[in-house]
This record gives sequence, C-alpha cells and structure tokens, in this order.
Amino acid sequence: MVEPAIKYRLIKEEKHTGARLGEIITPHGTFPTPMFMPVGTLATVKSISPEELDEMGASIILSNTYHLWLRPGEDLVAEAGGLHKFMNWDKGILTDSGGFQVFSLADMRKIEEEGVHFRNHLNGAKMFLSPEKAIDIQNKLGPDIMMSFDECPPFNESHDYMKRSVERTSRWAERGLKAHANPKTQGLFGIIQGGGFEDLRKQSARDLVSLDFPGYSIGGLSVGESKEEMNRVLEYTTPLIPQLKPRYLMGVGTPDSFIDGVIRGIDMFDCVLPTRIARNGTCMTHKGRLVVKNAQYARDFGPIDDQCNCYTCRNYSRAYIRHLFKADETFGLRLTSYHNLYFLLDVMRNIRQAIKDDQLLEYREHFFEEYGYNKPGAKNF
Amino acid sequence: MVEPAIKYRLIKEEKHTGARLGEIITPHGTFPTPMFMPVGTLATVKSISPEELDEMGASIILSNTYHLWLRPGEDLVAEAGGLHKFMNWDKGILTDSGGFQVFSLADMRKIEEEGVHFRNHLNGAKMFLSPEKAIDIQNKLGPDIMMSFDECPPFNESHDYMKRSVERTSRWAERGLKAHANPKTQGLFGIIQGGGFEDLRKQSARDLVSLDFPGYSIGGLSVGESKEEMNRVLEYTTPLIPQLKPRYLMGVGTPDSFIDGVIRGIDMFDCVLPTRIARNGTCMTHKGRLVVKNAQYARDFGPIDDQCNCYTCRNYSRAYIRHLFKADETFGLRLTSYHNLYFLLDVMRNIRQAIKDDQLLEYREHFFEEYGYNKPGAKNF
Ligand SMILES: [Zn+2]
Ligand SMILES: [Zn+2]
Repeated sequence: MVEPAIKYRLIKEEKHTGARLGEIITPHGTFPTPMFMPVGTLATVKSISPEELDEMGASIILSNTYHLWLRPGEDLVAEAGGLHKFMNWDKGILTDSGGFQVFSLADMRKIEEEGVHFRNHLNGAKMFLSPEKAIDIQNKLGPDIMMSFDECPPFNESHDYMKRSVERTSRWAERGLKAHANPKTQGLFGIIQGGGFEDLRKQSARDLVSLDFPGYSIGGLSVGESKEEMNRVLEYTTPLIPQLKPRYLMGVGTPDSFIDGVIRGIDMFDCVLPTRIARNGTCMTHKGRLVVKNAQYARDFGPIDDQCNCYTCRNYSRAYIRHLFKADETFGLRLTSYHNLYFLLDVMRNIRQAIKDDQLLEYREHFFEEYGYNKPGAKNF
Repeated sequence: MVEPAIKYRLIKEEKHTGARLGEIITPHGTFPTPMFMPVGTLATVKSISPEELDEMGASIILSNTYHLWLRPGEDLVAEAGGLHKFMNWDKGILTDSGGFQVFSLADMRKIEEEGVHFRNHLNGAKMFLSPEKAIDIQNKLGPDIMMSFDECPPFNESHDYMKRSVERTSRWAERGLKAHANPKTQGLFGIIQGGGFEDLRKQSARDLVSLDFPGYSIGGLSVGESKEEMNRVLEYTTPLIPQLKPRYLMGVGTPDSFIDGVIRGIDMFDCVLPTRIARNGTCMTHKGRLVVKNAQYARDFGPIDDQCNCYTCRNYSRAYIRHLFKADETFGLRLTSYHNLYFLLDVMRNIRQAIKDDQLLEYREHFFEEYGYNKPGAKNF
C-alpha cells in the first residue's frame, strides 16, 4: 500500500468542546491546525508576495483549478515545473476540483453521469469537466492537496435531487481516485455533500470514508444557509470522519465561523473574503469591520486595528490608507489585504492557543463580544 | 548665516569626462551621487513598499507638490507629522514645486507676475499657485529638498517669450527663498530655465547662483527636444553651477540620458517612466526593452533580464509575469515596477563604479551597444 502524501497528527482535543489541535504533514512542510488558507485563485494571492504570506504565518494557500485550467492552462504550469515553482511558493498548496466554479460561474451547464458540459465565463467556449479531467489538471498543477470533482447543488435543493447528486458525487470520487496519477506526492481529498439532510451527509460520508481518502472536505456550506444551519450540519457530519484524517470546511472564512467550526471539529478553512473585501477598503478588526475609505477616517492617524501587530498596522495610519484608496493607489489594497489575511491567521493562532489552554469557549465569548457578533443583527464579518 | 539643510561633497571627477562622484547629505541620511530618484507622486511609489525601495538601493524619492496639494492636502500631511511619517519612509524625499503640473495638467491657465491661476485636472476647481504658496505647501509637506516655483514654457518658445519667462522665474525664486520657513531642515533648490538658448540659460543660472541656493535643478528639458539638443544645453549649463552644489536634471529617466547626463556633470535624476511603463508590462533590460505581455513570452521560463539580480528576476519567469498581466493581477505590475526601478538604480551603481574606475566612456559604449542604442532609429528607453 502506498504511503499517503498527506498525514494528520492529532496533538490534543480541547477539554470542553473537543476542538482539535493537530498538524498536517505535506510534501511541502508541516503546518499546525486549525489553519486558515489564503486564496490565490490565479497562482497569486492578490497583491501579496509569497514572502509576505510566509511572514504573516500562512503555511498553505489555495489555488483554483477551474481558473488555472483556463489561464494559463495546466500544461504551461506543468512545463514551468508545477504551481510551487511557477508562483515561487515552497510551502503547501491545495487546489479545489473546479466543481464549485463550474456550478457558480459557468453558463449553459449540463450535468451528465460522465461529467459536466458548460460554457466558460471568459469567452463562452464550450468545455467539459469530468472527475478524470479534474484529477488530470490537478496532477499537472502539482498541489500538495487535491479535491475530488463534486457536484455542488444549492442548499435548498429537494431531498430527491440531493440524494441522486450525492450518489453521483460518490461515483465521481471513486473515478477520481482511480485516475489519480501521483498518490505518493499529492493527497486527494473526498468531498462530503448532502446539503442540510442528515441522512444524505451520512450516506456521503460513509461512501467516501470507505474509499479511504487521506482527508475529507465538507462542501455545500456557506452558500446562503444560516449560521445555525451550517453549525447543525457540522455537528452531525464531522463525527462521521475518521479521527486521524484532516477535515476541511470549504469556502468559509469569517472569524465567527472559524471559531464555531473548530468547536465542531474542523481543521482547515479557506475563503476569498478577506482579500476581496480588502480591495474595497473594508478591514476586519478586533472591534468588527472598518471601512477605511469612509470620511470619518480622513484625519485618523491611528492604525487599522490597535490590537493588531501586522506590517500594515505597525507602519501606516487609517488616514494614509484612506488617502491611497481615494487616489486609486494599489499600495492601499496591498496594505488592507495584508492586514485582513494577517488578522485571520492571527485569529487561528489564538484559537490554537485557546485549545492548548482549554479556554476555547472563553476565547469565543470574548472575541464575539468585542467583534460585535453578540449584537442583534450583527453582520458575519 | 544658517547652515544649509542640504550639502554636497565631491569625491572625485572621472579622468576623461569630468563626471562627478559625490554624496549629498540630507536631514534623512546621506546618499551617493550620481543617483536616480524613483517617483512617488501621491506619497507612494506605485505598488512598491518603502522597505522594497530601501532594499533596491533607493535612498531618496520624489513626490509631487501639485498632486499632494489636491489630495490629501498639505495640512493633513503636516498633521500626520510630515511626508516621511505619513508614508513610512525615513530616507530622503524631494518635492517638485507644482509648476510643471500646473503647466502640463491644469486647464485655463493664466500666468501673472503674482502667480498662476488655473483649474485643477481633478474637478476643474479654480486654484492659484504662487511662489510663496508653493513654498508654504512644501514647508508643510516636509521633504528634505524643495523646489522653487518656476514657469516651464515649451522648448520651442520664442527667445522673446523665454527671456521674459526666465526673468520672472528668477523673481519667483527670490520670493520663494524669502518665504521659506525651514531653511535649517529643508533645502530649497533654484531651477535654471531658458530652453535651448545659451544666453538665457546663462542669465537664469547667474540670477539663481547669486541667490546662493543649496542646489540647482535644470528644468525645461525632456519635454520633446532631441537627445542632441538636451546634451548641448547640459554642456553649456552645468559649468555655470558652482562646483560644490548638487545638480539635478528634472524629469529625465532613461538609461542613455543617465549616462550622457552624468558625463555632462549631473548628480541627480528622477523620472516616472520606469514605473509607468512597468504598469503596461514593459521592462527595461540590458538588451533593451521587453514587453512581457507579448505572446512570445508565454512559455519563456527565464527571468525578465538574465543579467539582473533583482527580487523579480531571481524568483519569477517571464511566463509567470505574462500570466499575471493577462489575468489583470496587480502582483504582475508590482514585479515589473520592482524590476524597472532596480534596473535604473543598478545602472546608477554601475555608473558610480565606472567613475571610480575612470572607465565611464567604456561603460557607455558597452551599455549602448548591448541595449541597442547604437542601432539606427533606436527608441530611447
Ligand atoms: Zn493589522
Ligand atoms: Zn530584475
């Protein structure tokens, strides 16, 4: 039997919640969990250098198979020596399967047993993505962690539709596993689907666990359902995953869902939100979100977040960053992107410390209170 | 008598050309000359951090009085503690007088003895800039080196017009000197004008030298005249400037004009060209310019310039940078901006070494040959 490319080591479980402290061993280094992965869609985390990612404590990033397939193409990346070399990043890389983008960005989608026909969002050209193709692209891109090709139906699809979708996703996962050319150097995760139906999440988990993937993702969440629904799904889904396999909650990146996900046994998160809102001048701070472009900060010479120790907060004022945004200077979004990523990586550092100290619920209460999540109608970032 | 804020030390003159090796002492450090100053128009060198500027060997940058006056305003910058603190840059800063922008960007210009009435280029509001106002703004911005307010007529204006303009610019220089509030901490340079008329350059230089500025700029060049005309003007103008005062050739930033300017006694240069063309994917290399967006570089896994040791060239391929540009990723223009600035700062390092070695003409010949300047019809960057 092949030694898996990705291994998980459980270090401890928090006394009151069972939240997991661990580490994930990859061909490009070992990183502590729970961990947040910044998103570098097109082989770059927008406006941030690899050295800066390293400096802020990112040890694995996510890149998007669908987008790289279209531009610059997986063959070019392979010719460059793989994603790590292409983008000058020698720590962990995870790629998604392309499924989510096919279901959210592409037009004229037609799902068949064989795969999905669609027109791409860039030039409308007809394309076809199958479980084997998704694996082939990821084998060529060369990330440490790959995802099985899955269908991502809306959360409120009928039980009937969702059941057929989950069963197809399981067949696709098996086909992907067979197609995987590099199991020694790239770990392939299965994706558990099933929307808000407990029986289907169980069925999906059972199918995938029987295939013995080196890790499992939980998909189909953070797609518009309420926080309570997401937490409920996690509560009955994570216990279905073997204890010594990493658990990745896909597309979730707000501080509250980090804490609540970790409490429910999640090890890995990713989200494009921190860099996306940063480009619009919105910053996450310990006291909630701050729109630095607002007129009230024009003469505010304090940092974005006076509890933050990042490069941006150590060196630049709200007034300066606001000026950069008003003048359309890209250095502004570089500074806010840096801060937001650092902020979330720092929340994760604090979560890991709280697990060590068996103080996770106290940390949650303190963080939520200060961030404003306890206020009625609070936004979730 | 007040000790001037800016001092020049002459280290040596090159044996064959008289090119000067020296250093300029400012309240924010001493830098070697000849030197190139990157342009940070709005208190940021577009897409580049202060730490990166330092790392690439920039020890003084230029910022634009006119642009900062409009956004965010000199009072806000003063409240922030001055430009150095506002933008997190503790080395040298030079500001221009705003004159060039008033004459090139603004609308509805009306020049009077008192100053210039115009409408700004952002919202068309009526504004007025005088010698005193230009100094007041610069006193509030707080750069190490300030410029006198000057008129910048087109190179091909009549002798008659140019003579009246030069005389007014001299009167403006004297008014600015009187208005200057911080001579101990900010050095004010006079700007020699006169177009392509030797007698007027002499008159301008004589007027300004009699006012004993701590440094002199040569203005009104690089505005469309030929290289030969520019060199001719420099040949008769620089000898008019006292030997122990720095000489700054404004707005000139191509490698050929660095070398040819230094040969004619210039110590300081600035130009927005390297960052402006970088944002369009055009790179300066030892073998001439390279448009990295071009299809021919799609699968070129070599660096922008294989003779360059910059961060970009050490870590990224033409193929990767082209991909970033095709995908509109700002990290691409960050990488090309870094390279172009490093390239010019490195040319300056090589020029200083060639002066030390008394090999400047050999260096010129070698550089011109390799860059392609010796080819017929060669572009000048
Ligand atoms: Zn910060
Ligand atoms: Zn370079």
